[in-house]
Amino acid sequence: MSQEPRPSAARDKLLFTPGPLTTSAAVKEAMLHDAGSWHFEFNALVANVRERLLKLAGLSRAAGWEAVLLQGSGTYGVEAIFQTCVPPRGKVIVLANGAYGERMVQMLNHARIDHVVLRTPEDTASDPKALEACLAADPAVTHVAAVHCETTTGILNPIGAIGRATKKYGKIHIVDAMSSFGGMPIDCEKCGIDFLISSPNKCIEGVPGFCFVLCRRAVLLASEGCARSLSLDLLGQLKSFEKNGQFRYTPPTHAILAFARALDELEAEGGIIGRGERYRRNHETLLAGMARLGFHPYLEPSVQSHFITAFRYPKGKPFEFDGFYRRLSDRGFIIYPGKLTEVDTFRIGNIGRLFPEDMEQLVFAIQATLSEMGY
Amino acid sequence: MSQEPRPSAARDKLLFTPGPLTTSAAVKEAMLHDAGSWHFEFNALVANVRERLLKLAGLSRAAGWEAVLLQGSGTYGVEAIFQTCVPPRGKVIVLANGAYGERMVQMLNHARIDHVVLRTPEDTASDPKALEACLAADPAVTHVAAVHCETTTGILNPIGAIGRATKKYGKIHIVDAMSSFGGMPIDCEKCGIDFLISSPNKCIEGVPGFCFVLCRRAVLLASEGCARSLSLDLLGQLKSFEKNGQFRYTPPTHAILAFARALDELEAEGGIIGRGERYRRNHETLLAGMARLGFHPYLEPSVQSHFITAFRYPKGKPFEFDGFYRRLSDRGFIIYPGKLTEVDTFRIGNIGRLFPEDMEQLVFAIQATLSEMGY
Repeated sequence: MSQEPRPSAARDKLLFTPGPLTTSAAVKEAMLHDAGSWHFEFNALVANVRERLLKLAGLSRAAGWEAVLLQGSGTYGVEAIFQTCVPPRGKVIVLANGAYGERMVQMLNHARIDHVVLRTPEDTASDPKALEACLAADPAVTHVAAVHCETTTGILNPIGAIGRATKKYGKIHIVDAMSSFGGMPIDCEKCGIDFLISSPNKCIEGVPGFCFVLCRRAVLLASEGCARSLSLDLLGQLKSFEKNGQFRYTPPTHAILAFARALDELEAEGGIIGRGERYRRNHETLLAGMARLGFHPYLEPSVQSHFITAFRYPKGKPFEFDGFYRRLSDRGFIIYPGKLTEVDTFRIGNIGRLFPEDMEQLVFAIQATLSEMGY
Repeated sequence: MSQEPRPSAARDKLLFTPGPLTTSAAVKEAMLHDAGSWHFEFNALVANVRERLLKLAGLSRAAGWEAVLLQGSGTYGVEAIFQTCVPPRGKVIVLANGAYGERMVQMLNHARIDHVVLRTPEDTASDPKALEACLAADPAVTHVAAVHCETTTGILNPIGAIGRATKKYGKIHIVDAMSSFGGMPIDCEKCGIDFLISSPNKCIEGVPGFCFVLCRRAVLLASEGCARSLSLDLLGQLKSFEKNGQFRYTPPTHAILAFARALDELEAEGGIIGRGERYRRNHETLLAGMARLGFHPYLEPSVQSHFITAFRYPKGKPFEFDGFYRRLSDRGFIIYPGKLTEVDTFRIGNIGRLFPEDMEQLVFAIQATLSEMGY
């Protein structure tokens, strides 16, 4: 295979990343239209998307739930909840075992919101017992924030047990489900979730440009008057959708057209169950192939999600990741660097329009690259 | 022409709006690729786009300027400046004569930032003399914020004179140039601008999903430690571009690919001068046609921009705007409602991939619609 950059007409490089992802041709083709952001046809599409998101989560407006879309990346959605819903004297417990938990801490620092961080090592799931002890000891706490699948490692945190502890003490439960929602079932009611944030360019296989929050309407309404940011005012956004069906400010119209198409494809694949099944097969294919090449995943299987996997650098001679990455890119495969603080890893995502055959092809490319590099 | 909704394969309805706009086929086709947001090829494209934005504005890094892209709509960019750069005891003068000036006031209220509002009526340009008096009387002021083309009416505010007053008192000058940048020359140095915000889906004719800020590097760097929001931390964003060429959080990759193509087309059209010339011809064609139909623009010609025009409702029998709008939409033309508080208007934008012939077609469609409705 040539080392030259491919002409743009050739197939795009495949993205084995946590997103933006490889999406289907049809999802991208949905962006070949210009929609008026104030226009009734676009508003109807937005209303339909909000409805379908609730349905996908097994929730309904009748049961007190809302889906709010917000411009910006997924991070904006997490921060919007803090900026909108934590009262001036509120206090947040953050459960952190990776970069996305730490990002929540950064958000709270920026907004000057009081908080406590309960950290576990990056290979260890968040600890609901430590949370419960903290809740028992500190009545000032108002909110508990957790990351479902921490993309730093791919670890799955026990949001069910975290939710039970949170609800036992009557606190508000915020879950960053960025890289899990749509790829595995999440029972918001059972997990005691008040706010769940996710992104179109993860398991739903849309394109980036906005995020969405599923939330209990009454909890969001109770935050009236508290928002510290206009753009990130989640309640203001909900009110605008309810007033005239519109985003308050210019929405990424093309990304939303793509999202509607991505939801069609998700439904056609058998919804969350069907999609999760493909991701699980992708993951298993990847693990088996990488094991053949002598690579070891960073996490124990018991806490490993089927969305993204961190692999340790191979032992023996020093591993030159940059060269490895570039050679794989030349072959048309884009992987993801590690983000761990103490152990050298790289990451391979298996979400997006990828199939077990693509995982096999990636493993072959890794094998050829390693051999080329003399490993 | 049929009243039935057109099949999606037909030509999209033309958008005579302030954005999102009708864009070229090639701009939309640039979105048919999935780019890795961490990947070096995408980073190179982002660096190139930042460079070209400075060049378009006649600025350079060597002269102390930076272009920072930020996820979210244009509103996010304006708010990011306030949230990042106004110190805890800072105070902002807002010059307001429409909804976008008032939106700045809302932002400052949300962020609990002290401010004064200098209002002029919606048909009257902002008053640099009133600003100077206010600056002379109130030494606590640190920033002055103005809207260049107030999209509420299409009025052009005198940012040159505003800048001179602002700089006479050594204050920081923030200009919302959302709907003007790229469609008329703006001399940031001469206008004493420290921060200029604009959006890809205005005169540059890209698609929505992010915004950009052109700013004096030293002024942005001086805001260290002040940011009240992580997502809207403009300095954090600049640092990330400088550290590794990347957005801090997932960028709207497709919208950025489209933007690069939109910049190509802008350059091919003769840059800001060439594009502005087309918009001016669009505007003149529209005005002449609407005058034939008896419509009067809301603004005096001396303050009217060539981007968007507010027209008064026709006199005589009550004007049923909703019906008018829907019938025009059925004909394939999407206009924009008014946003004025005291006078009934509707708006027609002439930016985007629109040509004088399109303005003529719109006028014909308006004529036919009025006749159909019995006016």
